[in-house]
Amino acid sequence: MRNIKFTIEYDGTNYVGWQTQPTGPSIQHTLEQGLKQLLQEDVQLIGAGRTDSGVHARGQVANGKTRSGLQPEAIRKGLNALIPDDIVILAAEEVPDSFHARYSARERFYRYNLSLVPTALERRISWYVGGYMLDPEAMDACAAQIVGEHDFSSYCKSEYRGDNFLCTVKSSAWIREPSKLLFEISSNRFLHGMVRALVGTMVEVGRGHRPFEEFKGILEARDRRKAGMAAPARGLFLERVVY
Amino acid sequence: MRNIKFTIEYDGTNYVGWQTQPTGPSIQHTLEQGLKQLLQEDVQLIGAGRTDSGVHARGQVANGKTRSGLQPEAIRKGLNALIPDDIVILAAEEVPDSFHARYSARERFYRYNLSLVPTALERRISWYVGGYMLDPEAMDACAAQIVGEHDFSSYCKSEYRGDNFLCTVKSSAWIREPSKLLFEISSNRFLHGMVRALVGTMVEVGRGHRPFEEFKGILEARDRRKAGMAAPARGLFLERVVY
Repeated sequence: MRNIKFTIEYDGTNYVGWQTQPTGPSIQHTLEQGLKQLLQEDVQLIGAGRTDSGVHARGQVANGKTRSGLQPEAIRKGLNALIPDDIVILAAEEVPDSFHARYSARERFYRYNLSLVPTALERRISWYVGGYMLDPEAMDACAAQIVGEHDFSSYCKSEYRGDNFLCTVKSSAWIREPSKLLFEISSNRFLHGMVRALVGTMVEVGRGHRPFEEFKGILEARDRRKAGMAAPARGLFLERVVY
Repeated sequence: MRNIKFTIEYDGTNYVGWQTQPTGPSIQHTLEQGLKQLLQEDVQLIGAGRTDSGVHARGQVANGKTRSGLQPEAIRKGLNALIPDDIVILAAEEVPDSFHARYSARERFYRYNLSLVPTALERRISWYVGGYMLDPEAMDACAAQIVGEHDFSSYCKSEYRGDNFLCTVKSSAWIREPSKLLFEISSNRFLHGMVRALVGTMVEVGRGHRPFEEFKGILEARDRRKAGMAAPARGLFLERVVY
């Protein structure tokens, strides 16, 4: 069996997320169907990040094992021809058998696209925060505060059943653009719903609805009822995964 | 009557173009319907550029006259609440009665977004030119050649019924980005289909299908059969209009 690593871009608008669900089309299932058609074989894909419904990716990584002798570049082109145009395989390469897209990942990068003005062209890929004035310095302070190893229980969706809430955030910062604020975060791992809950809570601080001191207390509380509302899925991108 | 100037962003994917047509929804008609609902009055809009079906705008300008006493900012917000989210009114302001979005315009800026790699996220707003190697220097030479006043008959769609084909191109250049080529052009006026025919023909030169010398001859020929195929509408943006 050969192990193939795929790098994938997608517009998540019309999908229930990465992972196969009974409720609608997933990225994983769409790719597996394409691979079955191309290789006449069932290939099970493992994704680096289980992006939620509506979340996008510029560099999702997945791997799957195949008996096919087709060259990775031929698989890439063949698969792109068979899948809908809101998913694109950017790269395909053969990797050692031990490579596991999820467990081998050392660092994942996410970006959240916050629009400060209404936008028609980016309406599917950004969150327009409405007519609020945001205080970028308060938001910068929040972003800086979460760098390092912390228990992120407070920022985890309640349906998470694991018992390890520790994440080591390597970088976390707001980038200012003329009509946007981009939140960029990298970590060894992310909990379910973590980036969206962080962004939603930081926006509440930016709007002045919560003082920064309260934000500091949320992490320490380890209580999922303390964090703010989740920011909408459409502004979130899995940017890349480092191995 | 007050004269209101609107600056408009839109995703043209689902429209037959700026101008009202019997064949489907237009940007103009959608806005006029919104204004009628908001102001209880028929307002006729004049657009600066008659963008074709599928062409986008980041800064289309239109004006219309109203008896309403509503402040421009209230008209902007009210109209945004009534129109679909693929159109956004960025600004509304009162202008002198003599202001005419089309005739008063001194310079229009268009941009064409050419993708060098397949893209899921920008599939609606770019043209992926396929697996061709493009020669950016040959394309730069073409872009530079059209600066100045020229008769652009060769780059005008055959249904154009006017008799003035002279345009004064003020700037014309390709901007290189990591996985893109952006063509930026400004001119006092544009003929119907001109930017898309220019881009399509320059891409033929970039692919090596036409020598640069032939490109030079097309303008001089003043023959609409000489130019290359039109680039797809989805890559084209009306960026802004200067008065």
